[in-house]
Amino acid sequence: MAVVRRRIGIIGAGLCDEQIKKTAEHVGRMVAERDAILYCGGLGGVMEAAAKGAIEAGGVTVGILPGTKASDANPYISIPVVTGMSHARNVILVRSCESIISIGGSFGTLSEIALALKMWRPVVGLNTWKHLEGVHYVKTPEEAVKMAFELLPIL
Amino acid sequence: MAVVRRRIGIIGAGLCDEQIKKTAEHVGRMVAERDAILYCGGLGGVMEAAAKGAIEAGGVTVGILPGTKASDANPYISIPVVTGMSHARNVILVRSCESIISIGGSFGTLSEIALALKMWRPVVGLNTWKHLEGVHYVKTPEEAVKMAFELLPIL
Amino acid sequence: MAVVRRRIGIIGAGLCDEQIKKTAEHVGRMVAERDAILYCGGLGGVMEAAAKGAIEAGGVTVGILPGTKASDANPYISIPVVTGMSHARNVILVRSCESIISIGGSFGTLSEIALALKMWRPVVGLNTWKHLEGVHYVKTPEEAVKMAFELLPIL
Amino acid sequence: MAVVRRRIGIIGAGLCDEQIKKTAEHVGRMVAERDAILYCGGLGGVMEAAAKGAIEAGGVTVGILPGTKASDANPYISIPVVTGMSHARNVILVRSCESIISIGGSFGTLSEIALALKMWRPVVGLNTWKHLEGVHYVKTPEEAVKMAFELLPIL
Repeated sequence: MAVVRRRIGIIGAGLCDEQIKKTAEHVGRMVAERDAILYCGGLGGVMEAAAKGAIEAGGVTVGILPGTKASDANPYISIPVVTGMSHARNVILVRSCESIISIGGSFGTLSEIALALKMWRPVVGLNTWKHLEGVHYVKTPEEAVKMAFELLPIL
Repeated sequence: MAVVRRRIGIIGAGLCDEQIKKTAEHVGRMVAERDAILYCGGLGGVMEAAAKGAIEAGGVTVGILPGTKASDANPYISIPVVTGMSHARNVILVRSCESIISIGGSFGTLSEIALALKMWRPVVGLNTWKHLEGVHYVKTPEEAVKMAFELLPIL
Repeated sequence: MAVVRRRIGIIGAGLCDEQIKKTAEHVGRMVAERDAILYCGGLGGVMEAAAKGAIEAGGVTVGILPGTKASDANPYISIPVVTGMSHARNVILVRSCESIISIGGSFGTLSEIALALKMWRPVVGLNTWKHLEGVHYVKTPEEAVKMAFELLPIL
Repeated sequence: MAVVRRRIGIIGAGLCDEQIKKTAEHVGRMVAERDAILYCGGLGGVMEAAAKGAIEAGGVTVGILPGTKASDANPYISIPVVTGMSHARNVILVRSCESIISIGGSFGTLSEIALALKMWRPVVGLNTWKHLEGVHYVKTPEEAVKMAFELLPIL
């Protein structure tokens, strides 16, 4: 039997400032240290920073890519999934995770938060879209990861 | 050559109150009277009310369905599209439209608004998710339809 | 209530010779004359020829497009559906139809025939992939259309 | 940087006889022994047998699932991807692989072979759909794995 590891998603924009990147990298590292698989959109910005943190901590990173080439993935993706479905990959990303941490983000991220809430996936918000009922807002990377694991469904 | 008709999307929840239904039906009717094709998610609530208005005005209604059966469509859909892709159909719906009117709505609708803004589709908001930069908020069905047509890209 | 019209798919390659085009145009015309909606992949070759035949007979044509722009549709598509999902649109096309006619075709068409058979959609073959159990092979456009309508599920 | 591992897909039916299962398990084991990631559809039959072989050899297995639950995966999937897109997941599976081995199979498998050839992915056939131009037919599991690795694109 395969070892069952928890699946945590990290969502956020492909373009973001250095502070957000640092936050994402920190979150990614802690997710890997707790032995969960990190799922993300596979591209740059928050996705790349989070994957970098996870890989450097010895973790596994899944990148659900929108385009048609595995080479679109950032260098910290160990498992590329090449959807060729553009933004529809957002649905697959959210659905594949047991708990999601949203960091920063633009409209793509907002669509993922909304889809996650629609599909009853818990969402932790860190410096992201505000005032959304159902999102668990926190203030630090440590709180985000702690909350994301606490919200995992019981197996 | 096929006659080119404009494509207006109406998005909103599958469950809604009577007032929202009346609004959606009114909007659907006016969209059809202006000779646009009405695209929607094909199910109940706002989708059904809008399609009813359009069909009763002699219009054409496309239902982009999430499930695997054409019979999931409400009785006012003249063109069912059966995606079998659950919420990923939201992406197809939004992408197929030139301009979108959001009426009421829950998280599914929020995901569609976010996807529309991400894909540079104009969005008119009528009694829907608030405070979203980029959404053109209006107060009446008449204003909504007027605005949706004004925002259509030039052919 | 919307008028319920039958939904016939025509599948085939985007590149084909003049003889195949003629055949597709003839089939498309007869599908429209029998008042069914013609569904196709919306691009060139067999798709365009079939849509041309249908539109010139006063029919309605739905183009389930792989790309991200409605303007990818051939000029004989009255209802574009813009999936942005590349070959995954094949699944949506097949699923949306009640009966399918395959004319000529390359590997994309073979994938559609296989998906259709997998989803229990009847498939009529006219000068297309050979020796597939489950495909109803015919020799003329007239036979193809007659067979496609005979195989429609009872409503 | 993440370690780049090659991506081999194994496709085949969810229902198959014991002989085919043995073959799939053997192929899966050899794919893992050569340190590639095994991608499959995540369900039973050939998919489960191949994943079992790979996991027992210490490998990594990705299951691109058609349904909406990770728990649909067979017990030998280490990385579930939950598409909720039914047969459209076939496209994602094929696109994510660099080389594909087809074992046995019904119409779903035929659709995957056709999609793979359409997308220029090399396909090795072992006791599977016959007479398809472009498929590299072999006779033993050893030959299948050898061929699948030889056909990998140069990085």
